[in-house]
Amino acid sequence: MSGALYIVGLGPAGEEWLTADARAALERAQDIIGYERYVARVPVRAGQTRLASDNRVELDRAREALQRAAAGRIVAVVSGGDPGIFAMASAVLEAVDHGEPAWRNLDIRVIPGISAMQAAAARLGAPLGHDFCVISLSDNLKSCETIEKRLTHAARGDFVMAFYNPASRARPQTIFEAFALLRELLPAERIVVFAKSIGREREEIIVTTLGEADASVVDMSTLVLVGSSGTTLVPRGDARPFVYTSRRAP
Amino acid sequence: MSGALYIVGLGPAGEEWLTADARAALERAQDIIGYERYVARVPVRAGQTRLASDNRVELDRAREALQRAAAGRIVAVVSGGDPGIFAMASAVLEAVDHGEPAWRNLDIRVIPGISAMQAAAARLGAPLGHDFCVISLSDNLKSCETIEKRLTHAARGDFVMAFYNPASRARPQTIFEAFALLRELLPAERIVVFAKSIGREREEIIVTTLGEADASVVDMSTLVLVGSSGTTLVPRGDARPFVYTSRRAP
Repeated sequence: MSGALYIVGLGPAGEEWLTADARAALERAQDIIGYERYVARVPVRAGQTRLASDNRVELDRAREALQRAAAGRIVAVVSGGDPGIFAMASAVLEAVDHGEPAWRNLDIRVIPGISAMQAAAARLGAPLGHDFCVISLSDNLKSCETIEKRLTHAARGDFVMAFYNPASRARPQTIFEAFALLRELLPAERIVVFAKSIGREREEIIVTTLGEADASVVDMSTLVLVGSSGTTLVPRGDARPFVYTSRRAP
Repeated sequence: MSGALYIVGLGPAGEEWLTADARAALERAQDIIGYERYVARVPVRAGQTRLASDNRVELDRAREALQRAAAGRIVAVVSGGDPGIFAMASAVLEAVDHGEPAWRNLDIRVIPGISAMQAAAARLGAPLGHDFCVISLSDNLKSCETIEKRLTHAARGDFVMAFYNPASRARPQTIFEAFALLRELLPAERIVVFAKSIGREREEIIVTTLGEADASVVDMSTLVLVGSSGTTLVPRGDARPFVYTSRRAP
């Protein structure tokens, strides 16, 4: 029997952002493997094995999934958002790169999902409507110097920026350091958005400016957006303004 | 009767990447409006009006959709990929910003979709697995100097890059100019991918290097990826290699 490994994007929350392809892969899988919060989002099916693990063991999880697929199982590794964007696809490929030669011949398929920045952008209007950068602020696997270098070039290049992993209990200061740097490089009126728990019950969206942004509201469930010079607000009375980035640039 | 305007992402092709939310919006809509190639992808439903237009009239199309929603219609503006990423959401918000004050109070919802870079990345492995920039190479609405500035900062910041609108009949030289600039800034062995017509019949993926890339294969249906220093290949014998960007950076 020949196994398969699907790396499936669940989208940021709920079922409304699930693609037809992702749904089909979840139905076909014999084993569902992932971080416990994501596994919990997959409807229980009789006969399916579920292996939930902690968030910080991506490589172990990837190897477990590869071993099972190599043994003939149909395995779905589930990720929130898009597995290809700061998520499990890179960890699985890293495990393949450094693992058993036979793993390279496995039927491995990445099934994309709506990423957090897209869901947040959709709620706001079109903040990602023009050139943008996507940066993980986690310093678990890269140096602070690299993060600073990338933030600096993103600012000097006048890109819209989306930040993933902006804070954690282990490094609550990261987002403060990022904002301190950006305040040296960009005008205070630059638009900033904190999009928290998008699609979940406690969803909260704060539209502010770089000068006034209070980074203490940021947690691991927050997607942070920083506008470019072309990002503007469309006021709507008492309702939250639309935020969009013009397709026109100087 | 109160109208609504849905700006719906169809994904890059086919139905497998359509989300549940997008499907529901298309079923609810009374009017389907969009570029003719995207309208053609929406299944015909009795009683639904279909308004297909040319690709270059985004603002006219946005205004038509807003007028219909203001008149009480339920309107879906359809976009390939994600409407929030170089697509119709920004055009609609621009029309709202400069249009009738009443348009600001309309029920306007953006429904995200899988963007071309995500579908291309999924086919390859995980090239967008770490920090990346997304840049439109079209100089219709911005200057060549801005494009050059952004390419330069993307290269100096060691970002993975995804290019949209890399070429057109009106400006076939854009992608050649971009590669000439990148060759001055990055090593020749940097990985380059041309992902053509992803999800469609003529899908073709070329994995090459910056030194060897032949930009003459690039057309409007091509998504171009340029790797960072952390982007590597996993060879697989005769099969196309996996491409992934490590979660680790210096």
